[in-house]
Parts: sequence; structure tokens; C-alpha cells
Amino acid sequence: MNKEKISKSVIRRLPRYYRFLSELETNNIDRISSGKLAEIMRTTASQVRQDLNCFGGFGHQGYGYSVPKLKSEIENILGLNNRFKAVLIGAGHIGTAIAAHMKFEALGFNLVGIFDNNRDILGSKIGFLPIRDVETVGDFCRSENIQAAFLCIPRASAKGVVEKLYNAGVKSFWNFTHYHIQGDFPDAIVENVHLGDMMMTLCYSMNEKEEKV
Amino acid sequence: MNKEKISKSVIRRLPRYYRFLSELETNNIDRISSGKLAEIMRTTASQVRQDLNCFGGFGHQGYGYSVPKLKSEIENILGLNNRFKAVLIGAGHIGTAIAAHMKFEALGFNLVGIFDNNRDILGSKIGFLPIRDVETVGDFCRSENIQAAFLCIPRASAKGVVEKLYNAGVKSFWNFTHYHIQGDFPDAIVENVHLGDMMMTLCYSMNEKEEKV
Repeated sequence: MNKEKISKSVIRRLPRYYRFLSELETNNIDRISSGKLAEIMRTTASQVRQDLNCFGGFGHQGYGYSVPKLKSEIENILGLNNRFKAVLIGAGHIGTAIAAHMKFEALGFNLVGIFDNNRDILGSKIGFLPIRDVETVGDFCRSENIQAAFLCIPRASAKGVVEKLYNAGVKSFWNFTHYHIQGDFPDAIVENVHLGDMMMTLCYSMNEKEEKV
Repeated sequence: MNKEKISKSVIRRLPRYYRFLSELETNNIDRISSGKLAEIMRTTASQVRQDLNCFGGFGHQGYGYSVPKLKSEIENILGLNNRFKAVLIGAGHIGTAIAAHMKFEALGFNLVGIFDNNRDILGSKIGFLPIRDVETVGDFCRSENIQAAFLCIPRASAKGVVEKLYNAGVKSFWNFTHYHIQGDFPDAIVENVHLGDMMMTLCYSMNEKEEKV
């Protein structure tokens, strides 16, 4: 498999393939045709074959794809076994929801620290992790070799926090704020979560449908 | 402008253009070159020109784009002035964060009701809106002509809630659960928010960088 050849748009679809394959596995389904997979993915069989061919797919004429093989191949491509060490900054509502409900280990991460600047909640726990003072996040990241940070903080405090993290060796960010990290730290790896953009997209789809009626 | 000609991928980028143009307007910048806009959008000037040409753009050689004109054109395409009436279901951490912090009116919506099934929080308020009993959501949506619902509930309760909403005339959903709404309601308009997929994409980018080093 030559990763260089996998396009960004295929990569963007891989988590979805992975999610559906995991569900199939949970339901003890161990092979699937490209047609059926396309149906689940809400795309065409030819798109599925094209996507999976990019990394040497495992489909066989008349048999389809082996669910566990395909899942483990995608797991490798995404690097989900890395379990990158991560901290979460901001234990407000969004941060708490994420810390409490996301299955980090299945998503490639190991969450080892939660930080906030609100003295009233320091020391209380989310799951097994205590909320720590964000003033100490630099030292923590240095001594724990933290690789990624999930930013669940207001935009106004984002730049200061990212600076602190970056200087402590954290170069990868999952970013809920609209702060443009790469503007200040060009070599940072960033995945932005723009909830507002998705809401506008829903508005567009509704508007479009209304016009057609 | 012929909307039919605007591709899905251009549409996906429009909220981002809109967001940046709003920021420029806030900063009293009223024109911008395609090169500068490309820089902000982290793409190429030719991509920007191509995108904006799709809807008859407003660029002029040597002048660039008028920020307020372009912003209002994108606002129209996205239909942000519709202010679709919406309810939010699930006042847990994610739902509370969204209800409290998102600027719905700027995103095309008017949030008029919040619902939950937890009796302990019914009646308490998020902003100006009281949390209502989800048992009453059908009647509420019928009498208020609700058009969209933001689902911030666990997957297990999603199907029942969507059924209730759909039967009360709500056909559009912003969906945080992994429940596949269109599988059961093919004509529903759905925007899924898969936070886990975005986290896996970050993992992929980190993994890819590590391999290159």
C-alpha cells in the first residue's frame, strides 16, 4: 500500500467506513459486498471499490470484503493503534461531554489529563481524571510527553493556551474554537470542529428543498 | 445565479467564506483580493475565483471583492435569513453548551424550545428558554410549526424522539447521535455531526507526520 496515493477526500471517508465496519463486526457480520457497503455508506458500489482500491482493498469477486480484514486495514491507515497521549483543556459543558462520553482509545488517543482555569472545579473528577489547574499544563505535558490537546475553551483564551502547549511540545490540536492556530503555529497539526458551519449547511439544505417545492 | 450549478463541495466551503467575511466586516475591511481571501481560506486564489464564479461572484480586476456584497450573496445562497424555527432535544452537557453558546440567528435558525426527559431539570432555564418535558414535544412542534430539531441525545433514545418529531411535521435534523435517520425517514434532511470521525482524522494526520519524520 502506498499511502501517498490516498487522496484527502478518501481519507475523510475512512472514519465512516471504520465506524460502519465496527458496527458490522459487533453484529457478527464478517463479510460484505461492495453494493451493501455502498448502501450503508450512502454512496455507489463503484465509489466504494474505487476508495478501497486506493489502499489495495481486499475485495474478491463473488465474495466481497472481509469485514475484520478491511476494518483492521483502515485502523492501520488511520493509525488508531497509536493511542497518542492527549490532554483536554476546558471542562465546561462541551469539554465535560467530550471527556465523559468519547471513546478515546477507539479513536486513536489516550486521554491522560483535564485542565481548566475555574478554581471552583479544580480537583473534581470527570471519570477517573481530576480537573487540574491550567497554569500547570506546560509542566504536565513536558513530563508526560503529551502529543495532542483537545481545546474546549473560549476563543479569547485559545492563543495563550496553545502557546503554552506548543512550548511544552504539544503540536497537534483538536480545536472547537475559531482561533486559527496555524496562523501563529504553521507546523501545528489541526483538526477544527466548526459546529456553526455544519448548522449553516443544514440551513442551506432546508432552504434548497423549500425552493424546489 | 443558477443554484443547480453549485457543487456540493463548493457549498461545504461557503460557511467558511461566510465566517471569514463576517470577521472582515467586523474589522471594517470592505474589500479583499482573491489572493488575500485565499490566504485566509487556506487555499489558492484560483480556487477562490472558481468557487465564487459559481454564483456569479462580484470580483473586479484590480479591485477584488466587495466584502459586504459577497457576504450578503453567500448569506442568500445559504438561506441564513430564513430563521427556521427549531427545537433542541437533550439538555445534557452538549445540548446545554449548544443552547447557551451558539448564535442561532446568525446561522439561519430561531431556537424556540428546549426539551429533555430528566424530570429534575424540567422548568429550569437555559438563557431565556425553559427546559420542557420531551413528552410534550409533538404538540409543541405542531402548534409552533417547528421546522428543525437539534438532537443532543443518546443514540438509544434517538429513534423514538425522531419518530415523534417527524410525525409532528419536523423533517430536518442536526444530529449528534450515530442513529441513521434517513434509514427510517428517507425524506428527512439531515446534517450529522460525527465528532469521533473528526478525532480519527486528527489521529491520521499525526500518524502520517510521524511516518514522514
